[in-house]
Amino acid sequence: MQSPEGTLARFREYMVGPTRFMTLLSCFELGVIDALRDRPGMTAAELGAAVGAKPDPLEQLLLLLVKDGLVKYDDDSGGYALDALAGVEAADLRRALGYMNMIKVVALRQLFHLTDSVRTGIPVGLKELYGYEGTLYGAVAEHKDLRESWATLMDAVTARIDPWFFANIDIPPGARVLDLAGNTGLGAVNACKLKDSPGLRVTTFDLPEKEEECLRNFKAQAVDGQCSFIGGDVFDGVPKGFDVVLIKHFLDMFDKSDVLKILGAVGESLEVGGQVHIMVPVYPEKITDTDNYNVDFFPAFFIGCTMGQGGPQKLSTYQSWLEECGFTVTRAITKDPAEIPADVIPVPAILCATKTA
Amino acid sequence: MQSPEGTLARFREYMVGPTRFMTLLSCFELGVIDALRDRPGMTAAELGAAVGAKPDPLEQLLLLLVKDGLVKYDDDSGGYALDALAGVEAADLRRALGYMNMIKVVALRQLFHLTDSVRTGIPVGLKELYGYEGTLYGAVAEHKDLRESWATLMDAVTARIDPWFFANIDIPPGARVLDLAGNTGLGAVNACKLKDSPGLRVTTFDLPEKEEECLRNFKAQAVDGQCSFIGGDVFDGVPKGFDVVLIKHFLDMFDKSDVLKILGAVGESLEVGGQVHIMVPVYPEKITDTDNYNVDFFPAFFIGCTMGQGGPQKLSTYQSWLEECGFTVTRAITKDPAEIPADVIPVPAILCATKTA
Repeated sequence: MQSPEGTLARFREYMVGPTRFMTLLSCFELGVIDALRDRPGMTAAELGAAVGAKPDPLEQLLLLLVKDGLVKYDDDSGGYALDALAGVEAADLRRALGYMNMIKVVALRQLFHLTDSVRTGIPVGLKELYGYEGTLYGAVAEHKDLRESWATLMDAVTARIDPWFFANIDIPPGARVLDLAGNTGLGAVNACKLKDSPGLRVTTFDLPEKEEECLRNFKAQAVDGQCSFIGGDVFDGVPKGFDVVLIKHFLDMFDKSDVLKILGAVGESLEVGGQVHIMVPVYPEKITDTDNYNVDFFPAFFIGCTMGQGGPQKLSTYQSWLEECGFTVTRAITKDPAEIPADVIPVPAILCATKTA
Repeated sequence: MQSPEGTLARFREYMVGPTRFMTLLSCFELGVIDALRDRPGMTAAELGAAVGAKPDPLEQLLLLLVKDGLVKYDDDSGGYALDALAGVEAADLRRALGYMNMIKVVALRQLFHLTDSVRTGIPVGLKELYGYEGTLYGAVAEHKDLRESWATLMDAVTARIDPWFFANIDIPPGARVLDLAGNTGLGAVNACKLKDSPGLRVTTFDLPEKEEECLRNFKAQAVDGQCSFIGGDVFDGVPKGFDVVLIKHFLDMFDKSDVLKILGAVGESLEVGGQVHIMVPVYPEKITDTDNYNVDFFPAFFIGCTMGQGGPQKLSTYQSWLEECGFTVTRAITKDPAEIPADVIPVPAILCATKTA
């Protein structure tokens, strides 16, 4: 057990979390990092002129980046230059900044209301900040800032992670596939493009208001011949007549009782022998595994900022819940953390299961 | 230089800062920690009944505390108990939670506007969240939540740190002392009680609206015979007729140009031979010193949340600014970090100087 002093030092680490986060992001938002990439050696005064700010606050914010070795400072010239940041590829930085922007817009202020969100089961921050009563997934339709920040990230995540998902699941030729909570069709498009199963037909199932944009996407991606849309709410039942159901980025949004309702409804919609393929972030089996950051992020994010409930589970927990709902799990794999970029928080898993009962 | 992967992993550390902070604080706010102290071994369901919340979000939030060894979870019984948290004294926890509450109320949401605050030089978050145009030190007069959170912390900080300050400065018997920006008189009271100089007289100098509460405090503390109040703004000049000027927790609120104005005004108010005693948090001389967390906190805090400017400097910087203003520095000491509780962010220093020019 760590010493009381060690525990208090941990508290200090927690305390500087919000300021550290915004100090780093703000240096990017201000254009300071781009300016230093273009012209290494600028002084605070030169940086101030370049980005339109007083030199004093730039000096202050850059202290942390110097402390952390991201930027270096030359005492003699008073000039700054990129240090470790110079070695990071532009695409990697863009991905990391997409996450940081999403955390800033969708989470930072909302987290203030985490305790009330736990008590009430609704994301109180959305109501307090946007006057919105409902979840983030409804709020993004009405609030451009939330939508741009969240959708930009989710599209990037889907583009990065769907190839791994489709490479690891089996969809027989001619299968009729339902993409549960498939949003505006990106998953269906990826199924057609990444899974070259002859005769494959994919139906996106989501709330009716997604239909128009979804059908437009199918046309734009030239998959409208094999893709369709059904409007509905999973909690009112899942459409029948499908061989395979995909559930991606969805189960982690709900508490256990709702996950069991969803899996139960999927089970009812399938014939015996029907398949479900799930992709979801998972907690490590040993929760003290310090390499997995899902625990550091998702509970507060789902409960405080998006749903007022939810959060991932361990792979073994999802496995047992599937079995409770009449499925036999045929595959359960977690993505190798070594294959995930080091800035990316979610560690996803795939569960494949067959309806047997 | 760290590898690109190492740098991206640092970004991930920054990204989980806000959620980690609120996850820990929320477990206290919900009463989960107190409940576990009273009755170790409670399950999530029992905890939920005890604190008035669903078990699911409590399970989710506690994962981080289990990961970090603060709380332990027993797989067989499904029960939780305090782990490292059990070893922390109640007074230490209270102090840490005072800081965390202040960071939540005064900083968490406001930080969203850090970039705009840098660009405009005003704390934009106070305007966006409270409709307040001005600094935190004005906003606390109008907004009870800000005041309670901030004043509670500052009173605790003053009580803890003033004994060190007064033990390290020299105030001659009979000296007339001015406590610059002395707020509602706590510093003057402490000067009388901690500095048993015969004939000592202390005057609190601050904005006129502080007078009533200040004089009430002098009476309540039975120092009204030796303490008085002068209302005014330091940027309009410092009252003359004093031998010693105290400047505590103040210089770090301003950019260099304003610090020089303040020190200049103090210099003008003193006769040659007059003394100034300053207490202020300082950055380490070697900014990459990882033991000092001032850099992680204060820039974003002062610029984004309280002043729209400011932030501490190195001890050597304050020393050179004092000399620029006609003072000779006679003492410059930084508090030994080993004497500061491990959860406390500010590392304070004392500078004593004599007017010589």
